[in-house]
Formats: sequence, C-alpha cells, structure tokens
Amino acid sequence: MTKLTLMTSGLALCAATMAMANDDLMTQMDNPAQWAIQTGDYANQRYSELDQINAENVGDLQVAWSFSTGVLRGHEGSPLVIGDMMYVHTPFPNTVYALDLKEEGKIVWRYEPKQDPDVIPVMCCDTVNRGVAYADGKIFLHQADTKVVALDAMTGEVKWEVMNGDASKGETNTATVMPVKDKIIVGISGGEFGVRGHVTAYNMETGEQEWRAWSMGPDEDILVDPENTTHLGEPVGENSGTNTWEGDQWMIGGGTTWGWYSYDPEADLIYYGTGNPSTWNPAQRPGDNRWSMTVMARDPDDGMAKWFYQMTPHDEWDYDGVNEMILTDQEMDGEVRKLLTHFDRNGLGYTMDRITGELLVAEKYDPAVNWTTGVDMDPESENYGRPAVVAEYSTEQNGEDVNSTGICPAALGSKDQQPAAYSPKTELFYVPTNHVCMDYEPFRVSYTAGQPYVGATLAMYPAPDSHGGMGNFIAWDNINGEIKWSLPEQFSVWSGALATAGDIVFYGTLEGYLKAVSAETGEELYRFKTPSGIIGNVMTYEQGGKQYIGILSGVGGWAGIGLAAGLTNPNDGLGAVGGYSALSDYTALGGQLTVFTLPD
Amino acid sequence: MTKLTLMTSGLALCAATMAMANDDLMTQMDNPAQWAIQTGDYANQRYSELDQINAENVGDLQVAWSFSTGVLRGHEGSPLVIGDMMYVHTPFPNTVYALDLKEEGKIVWRYEPKQDPDVIPVMCCDTVNRGVAYADGKIFLHQADTKVVALDAMTGEVKWEVMNGDASKGETNTATVMPVKDKIIVGISGGEFGVRGHVTAYNMETGEQEWRAWSMGPDEDILVDPENTTHLGEPVGENSGTNTWEGDQWMIGGGTTWGWYSYDPEADLIYYGTGNPSTWNPAQRPGDNRWSMTVMARDPDDGMAKWFYQMTPHDEWDYDGVNEMILTDQEMDGEVRKLLTHFDRNGLGYTMDRITGELLVAEKYDPAVNWTTGVDMDPESENYGRPAVVAEYSTEQNGEDVNSTGICPAALGSKDQQPAAYSPKTELFYVPTNHVCMDYEPFRVSYTAGQPYVGATLAMYPAPDSHGGMGNFIAWDNINGEIKWSLPEQFSVWSGALATAGDIVFYGTLEGYLKAVSAETGEELYRFKTPSGIIGNVMTYEQGGKQYIGILSGVGGWAGIGLAAGLTNPNDGLGAVGGYSALSDYTALGGQLTVFTLPD
Ligand SMILES: O=C(O)c1cc(C(=O)O)c2c(n1)C(=O)C(=O)c1cc(C(=O)O)[nH]c1-2
Ligand SMILES: O=C(O)c1cc(C(=O)O)c2c(n1)C(=O)C(=O)c1cc(C(=O)O)[nH]c1-2
Repeated sequence: MTKLTLMTSGLALCAATMAMANDDLMTQMDNPAQWAIQTGDYANQRYSELDQINAENVGDLQVAWSFSTGVLRGHEGSPLVIGDMMYVHTPFPNTVYALDLKEEGKIVWRYEPKQDPDVIPVMCCDTVNRGVAYADGKIFLHQADTKVVALDAMTGEVKWEVMNGDASKGETNTATVMPVKDKIIVGISGGEFGVRGHVTAYNMETGEQEWRAWSMGPDEDILVDPENTTHLGEPVGENSGTNTWEGDQWMIGGGTTWGWYSYDPEADLIYYGTGNPSTWNPAQRPGDNRWSMTVMARDPDDGMAKWFYQMTPHDEWDYDGVNEMILTDQEMDGEVRKLLTHFDRNGLGYTMDRITGELLVAEKYDPAVNWTTGVDMDPESENYGRPAVVAEYSTEQNGEDVNSTGICPAALGSKDQQPAAYSPKTELFYVPTNHVCMDYEPFRVSYTAGQPYVGATLAMYPAPDSHGGMGNFIAWDNINGEIKWSLPEQFSVWSGALATAGDIVFYGTLEGYLKAVSAETGEELYRFKTPSGIIGNVMTYEQGGKQYIGILSGVGGWAGIGLAAGLTNPNDGLGAVGGYSALSDYTALGGQLTVFTLPD
Repeated sequence: MTKLTLMTSGLALCAATMAMANDDLMTQMDNPAQWAIQTGDYANQRYSELDQINAENVGDLQVAWSFSTGVLRGHEGSPLVIGDMMYVHTPFPNTVYALDLKEEGKIVWRYEPKQDPDVIPVMCCDTVNRGVAYADGKIFLHQADTKVVALDAMTGEVKWEVMNGDASKGETNTATVMPVKDKIIVGISGGEFGVRGHVTAYNMETGEQEWRAWSMGPDEDILVDPENTTHLGEPVGENSGTNTWEGDQWMIGGGTTWGWYSYDPEADLIYYGTGNPSTWNPAQRPGDNRWSMTVMARDPDDGMAKWFYQMTPHDEWDYDGVNEMILTDQEMDGEVRKLLTHFDRNGLGYTMDRITGELLVAEKYDPAVNWTTGVDMDPESENYGRPAVVAEYSTEQNGEDVNSTGICPAALGSKDQQPAAYSPKTELFYVPTNHVCMDYEPFRVSYTAGQPYVGATLAMYPAPDSHGGMGNFIAWDNINGEIKWSLPEQFSVWSGALATAGDIVFYGTLEGYLKAVSAETGEELYRFKTPSGIIGNVMTYEQGGKQYIGILSGVGGWAGIGLAAGLTNPNDGLGAVGGYSALSDYTALGGQLTVFTLPD
C-alpha cells in the first residue's frame, strides 16, 4: 500500500510537470515579442501579431545589426527569441549560439558539438539543420549525426543527450525538434539511403525514449489501431504497413520524417508527413508502399495514430510528403472547421479536416503540374483520394532505364521544405514555390547499408512555356483551392515565409534578397541584398519596444547543393546541379544573420 | 642596320606602353569615385575627396547591400572599385570576384585558384591576404603559395602566372601587389621560418622577373651602391648586408617584406619596410642584423637602393619594420618638405625626409611603450638614429631561457599591418593601434627548411595601469610627434582607417563594429555591428551619384588567430591566443563585405 501510494503521487507529480512545461511553452509562443518555436506557433502559421513594421513603412526598413555564424553552406530554419536571448544554430557542425539582444548580439554562450564529418556524405541535400527548439528552460538540438541534446538555455550546459539513429546506416537529421507537453518529438532523414522512417518521443526532462512510430512495418511498429486508425474515414485494417509492400522491402522502405511538425493542443494531436519510399526506382517496390507519402495524425502521449492520408501512393517521382501541415480554424460552407492545409511536393494543395482526416480540397498550386490530372474526390469511388497519374509522366509505366521527360514538378516538388505562412487577416496562405520540371530515368539498384539507394538519374530545368524562372511566390486560397496572386522568381523560393499583422509578407530568395510584399496584392514594398542566398525562414520579434525582422543567409539546401558542395556535373546533387547552376552568378557561400528594423 | 632600327622601335613601343600603364593607373587613382589601389593612392594616405557622407549626416548611414565571400577566417585588405566593377578577394584559397555595381553585386566572374592546403600551416599569422591590385586592364593577385597571377579585369582570364617563392621552404604571401610603371612589385612572407626576405619586380605585361632585391646578403643581392646608397646620410659601405651578421646566419636572416608599399612618382622611388631578423632568439644572431627592420627607398626601374634606415638594430622583440610609409608634403619649420611618416611596430612614430632619408621625428605614439627611452636624434652622436634599449626589457641582455616580463609593446607592436590614414585637411594621421604588452622568453632553436624557426615563448595582455583595453584609435601630429586625441578600444584596432573630405574617419573593430568619428575631435558619430570581427581596411567609392563605404568583415589575423585557427592554449599563435581570448564573446568567423550609404 505504501508503495502504491508513492507511485501514484509520483505519477501525479509527473503529470503536473508535464502540464507546466507545455503551458509555459504555449505562453512563450503566445507572446508576439518572442519567436519561441521554429514554426512561429504549434499551428505552423508563421504569423506574427506585431505591426510596428507595416505596409506603409516597410520601405524604410534598415539593417540593425548582423552576425556571422562562423559556418558556411545552407542555413535553414531561423533564430529563436526567448526574452532578451536569441538562439542561433548552424548547419553541420551544428554550433548553437545564445546572443544577448540587449548588447547587440554579444555571445552569452556557444555550444560546439564534436561530430564525425563522415555524416556529411550521408546527408542527401546539404548539411542543413532547421533549427533548435525551446521548452522548459532548455534548448533542444537534433544534430546531423542524430544526437539529440538538451542544453540549459541560460548557460548552454548539456542536460542530457541521446542518439536517435545510426549515421553509419545513412540515418541523419536535418529537422527541428517539436516540444509537446513533457516530450520532445523528433524525426529522421535518410530516404535516399533506404532508411525506414520513424518519429520518436523523448522525455523532455530525462531524454528517455517514450515511444517510436515507424512509417511502415508491423502494426506494433507503426502504432496503429487497425480498427480505429482511419484512412479517409475507413479503418486501415491489419498489417497496413506491410501489405502494400513486396516481401521485406518495407524494412528499407524510406518514409523518413525530416519535415515540419504541428500540434493541435485542443485535439491533442500531432501532425506530420512521411517521405518517399525507397528506392526512387518504382519498379523495385510494387504496391502502394504505405505509409510513405502520408499525412499522419497521432496522439503525442503514446504515438498512436488517429488517421493517415497517403497523398502519393507508389511514388514514382520522389514527391516526399513531409511539407508542413498548417492548422487553421476557418469558415467553409458556412461552418467553422478545424482545417489542415498542406502544400505537397506533388504540386497539390490539400485542405483537410484535421480532426477526422477528411479530404476537402486537392488542387494544383502551380499550373505547371502535369503528372496528374487531379485527385478523385468522390468518396464512393474506389479511387477516392488517389491522384490520377498521366501515363506519359509515369516513370513506372515508362519503365526502368527509360528517360521520362518533361515531368512537372521536378523531384524537389512544387514546394519542398520551405514553409508557407498564413495570415488570419487575409485568410490566405503565402507559399514559396518551385517552378521546375525534370527528366527522370529509373534504374535498378541494390541495397547496402549506409550507401546511396537512389536508383534514378535526374535533370532539372525551369518549367517550360512559362516566365523562364524556377519559382513563384504565391498567395493561395485554401477554401477554393485557387491561386490569388503569383510573383515570378528567377530561382525557386527556398526560404520560409512570414506573414504579419502589418499586412505584409516576407520571404527570401536564392540570390540573397529579403523581400517584403503586400499581403493583399503581392506588390513588392522592400528588398535588400543580404550576404548570401537565403534558404532560411523569416522571423520577427520585439525588443525594447522595437520590432525586428531576422533572416539567416547561407545558400545551399537541395536547390543550392551545387554551390554548397562544389558540384558542377549537371546530374549531380540528385539532378539539382544543372538547373540551379546560374545561382553562382549571384551569390557565394555564407552563414549570416541579418536583423532589420525601422529607423528611430 | 635594319635590325637595329626594328629593335629601337620595339623599345620605343615598350617605353610607351610603360608610361601609359603608369599614367592610366595614376588617372584611375586620382578619380575619387574609384578605389583603384589597396592603399587609396601611391602615397598610402587612404584619404578620399568624397564628401557626400560627412560629419553632419554620417549618423544616418545605412547598409546598402552585402556580399558573403564564401570563405571564412581573417579578411584583410579591401575591395577595389574600377568603373562599375568591384573586385573582392578572400583569404586562402584567395578567390577573386568581379562584381557588377550596377546590379547590386551580381558576379561577373570569379577566379578560384587551386592551391595546396599545405601552405596554411606555414602562414604565421592566419591565412590572410591584403588584396588584389589593378593596372593596365589586369587584376594582379599574389596568392598564399606565392603564385603571382595576372587576370583580365573584364573576364577573369589568366594572362600569365609566375611562382615568386617556394612554400615548402616556408615562403608564403599575404601582401598586396604594387603596380609601378611597367612592373608590379611583390614581397614575401616567412620571417618565422627563416626565410630571407626580398622584393621582386615582374614585368606587368609578361610576368618576367625584372629584378629582385634581397633584404640581406651580398651587395649584388641587396642592390646597393656602397658609395651612393645611404643610411642616415652616410654611405652604407661595402658588404653592409652581411657584415653585421655572424657567419652565414644572413642566409636564413628574415627581413621579409610582407607589409605595404608606397611610391613617389616625382622622386621615382618606392618605399617599404623589412621584417624581423630570424630567429626571435636574439642570442643566436649577434650584430645589427642589417637590413632587417629597415625602411628602404629604391628605384623601381632597377631596384637600386637610394637610402635605408634601420629602426630596430638587432631586434629582440619581433618588431617587424614592415608597416606602411605614408607620403605627404607638409610644412615643417616654415618649409614644405617631402615627408614619409611611419608608425613602427616598435611603438615609435617616425617622420623622415623621403628624398634624403633624413630622420626628423621619432616619438612614441603609445605612452605605454617602455622597451626604449627614445631615439638618439643627434647627428653627431655615434648612436645617431638608434633607440636606447631599457635593460630590464632587453630579451638579449636578460638572456636565453629567461622570461622578460612586462615589455611594451608586445611582439605585434603598437601597430601591426593595420594601416593608418592621413587627412590633408587636418594634417593628422589616424592610427589604429595596439595597447598590448608581453612576456618574452627566448630559447635556442635550430633551422630546418619549412619548419618554424621562432625560438621564443610569448604571452600577451592589455597594457597594465591603463584603461584595460588592448587598443586605441589615435590622431597623430607627425610634425610635433604628438598624440592629438586617443579613443580607448577593448581590443586592438586591427582594421585600416579611412579619412575623407567629409571630415570623418572610419575604422573597424575586432568585435565587428564599423565606426565613424570626427576627424577633428574623435567624437563617435556612427557605429554598426557587421557580421564578424573587422581586420579589413575601410574604403569608399561613388556609384550612380552616391557615395558608398565598404568594409570586409572576417575576424582573424595575428590578433584573431585563436578564433581563426581554433586555438585555445594561451601561448599558441605566437602568444596571441591568450590576450585576445575574450574576442570569442563578441564574434565568430566570417567573410562578408558590407556596403553602406545614406538613405535616398
Ligand atoms: O528522404 C529523406 O530522408 C530526405 C531528407 C532530406 C533532408 O534531411 O534534408 C531531404 C529530402 N529527403 C528530400 O527529398 C528533399 O527534397 C530535401 C530538400 C532538402 C533541403 O533541406 O533543401 N532536404 C531534403
Ligand atoms: O615575418 C614574417 O614573414 C611575417 C609575415 C606575416 C604575414 O605574412 O602575415 C606577419 C608577420 N610576420 C608578423 O610579424 C605579424 O605581426 C603579422 C600580423 C599579421 C596579420 O596579418 O595579422 N601578419 C603578420
């Protein structure tokens, strides 16, 4: 009896800490003076209530100060701001700086992990990292080598660390960490190395593993309840993670989880997407390859799946489904609905009911998309929810060792990791997009742990018969599935957008410009040439009564891999080098934070 | 006869090209819209006639655009501007960019030399380079590995290249190139590797070697006329480059030539200084060690020396004499004189007659200097021109394996490579200085080609009983040998100054601030935190009717070697690591150009 009582109160204590950690982070995120999470908030809206900088005065923006990170190559993600402290991370070797905003960025502490550089060649798409997370007085870093580290936010002292994967098998990390309640949620990269994807929850306080949900495999691996986990309203049934695979292919099946994570505290569900099935040669993996390319809704406490939706069954183009899920409450057909909007690599903008997983809208957000004629929206149809594939662009139907040409979008999708923003004022989504097509020739490849497992040769180029550029920055109406306006860009917009209450939207370009445009019309209001190409995400904060805009420069990522890794063969970098070769006329490698404000 | 005629007209043609090249560069330098040479002009004044940005409005300065060089570590020197093109260089691997100023720095061409990284460990004081030169439609780069390259200024095409030294023997380069008439003048580094210094002239058109003047050695090596080359008015006499050395020590005698070069077109003389004698252990090289630590005036056509002045005979502290010689025409005692002003590492500011080599003024430009009580200025004295050494701070007198403590300045001098500026309006010199002292313990060392040949252990620290900082930015009166005003700085000011007709002076700090101060009073008028510590030189130019200020950031150089090379042992980096360790609280490695202008 005594023992039992103790245990119970121990649990009660635990639950209290849980709730507190969670509440604290939510309070931090609600304070518009801060940028407390990479995604702006749990909903991934990347919207700020700050309006000191607005459509009227943004043209007067000035650089306030700048900070070199001491590391070159692709700088994704953004700084965080908690109180007067800013946290800046870097690509490999994933240095973290705590900067004192009261002293123009004086360095309070720096954390410099020692990582084996052998991890660099097993990172598919540059040595990027999408940033640190904050919760409960700690900074969480998920390193390239998959070490997860908790640092004291005030001192940088290591509180705990744990290895999430094994880089010698091609398991790496580029994603940020999402703190939820008393846990942190982390993903894994390696879809180009036959890694079987998973999402893992670690205890925020201790680093102990709480649960792991694989993207494919037996039901106990993928954490489904065959009766209650649904796909478009239907139970997924038993063995859904293995029965659309031939043999053991699911064991090297991909579906990695390197994108962005969302959380709905009310529904108590986390959302994310899974990546491409391995290999890129579809002939080697007959079947739908569930649950690659899938939106997943899970319970953060135990990882159990509530619903799935597979957007691209049996992928033939590397259209990873990992892009962010943006959670909004909007009126649709006269009813306020809890929506999830997702701009998939496959070129379709999906609007779903985030509680039930019902598919509401699926429309092309780039008119160039040609591999599909659209998604079957008829719930009665046996193809319900499936995109209709155009034979000419089917690399499966054209077969191995055949070069399928003119496929739009290219493998890096109509949008890749670069996150969109949403303004509740305009109810529009601001989406940085790619306007790129490709030739794709699959070939047979055999699996060796830790070796590339790609099996396709690609070439990329601007969408033909268009404006000649490789990107657009668009405003999207997710209720009607329509582009509201579209700004042509010479290169893909590989930077994440920010929308603000000042009726402006910010984004960066691969040439290195930070741009501000009208949220209403898209009219350009400001541009500034930062030191290097931008693939980071724009953030904002307030300090001493002034609003600031922060952006990391440092060209790289998949689009910039030619520059970042010094590659010149057009087919290298999984086909991206050729398409983006003109980037070297505009920018060189970098790694800088530029902070803007209005003149006094 | 026919042959002779042809040859003569060939020569005539050559002479014409010579004159043209020279005149063209002088015209380019005279145009204040450009920054045609690293030193601002042949006189090394670093003064600009531009006054759009001035003491009244400099407080409104804004960042116009920025450019990441794609290389980390110490960025010395500055960009050049010729017409609408800007030329930006980097530290090792010495990439050169041509940027189109009409298109906010679009990259017109880039030159990326392939250099053996083995040169890095034989560079004493970081992988710096003090910039490219322009003449005759060509950009001249002197690489770390001592390859001198001439590039077509419009296309970046290699016109010719030649090796000036041998890195396997410790011969490297960090200096810029000075084009004079039909030649380019280049130096050599390696005083810490027993390299015997020399200055070499190459034909601008062909790259052929025209002459080489060694710093020590037989008369035919050092290019003196024993009767007509003078030292403080007296002929140097025969064998002056060997007879103050014991045995063959002169063959590994140092006196390298890695500093700045000046030219007086009217007198047709070039000026530069030679570095420390090797080794740093004075007991191993009895004698005055001529012509180390010497100001040299030579004829650019054949290299013949007109006069020498050895500032620090038999160096005991590594006070290289390579700092810039600033040429001015100023009134002194009622007479306009052709002066040469030089702020030596040894802490003395020298004013000389640049035609005759007469010593006019030698005064301490940092009151902390304690190794000498001053220079004997009596022409009748047998010690004329010699500094009186204070026994307590004589590492020679204290002997080998004895730690001489509290010597001021430290080995990096009261000023190192960071060049001063001169304003003809105020007739003041604006000098970035070090306020650092040292402990110095010499020890016996033996020579192996290509291996460090230092022989001393050093520790550096801020000048005691002062303001606690390691630097001052001062205004100096070279006629009276007096400090006019002095601004304390936390770290050495390792950046070169710029004075302008706008009555302002610019300089950068190791923390990364660009500062503008009143030329008259030193009052701070503007500061901006650039991405990384500044050791580059401030430059200015005009484009499309607007004046711009440009500065390279990128912490490093000897002062920043701890950060740049990742060293933490306080005695490492030839003693500099400990003194400057607090730098890591302010800045991280970088490599960026920041360009400023006034708002429209
Ligand atoms: O399948 C994978 O595991 C995986 C990982 C990553 C990554 O970790 O960055 C990318 C991709 N795939 C990918 O397909 C892709 O387009 C991509 C772009 C980027 C980037 O940061 O620019 N990473 C990745
Ligand atoms: O004796 C030499 O050959 C030599 C070379 C160099 C160089 O090439 O940078 C420096 C020095 N010495 C030196 O003494 C010194 O203080 C120094 C500072 C720096 C710098 O760029 O910060 N270089 C050098």
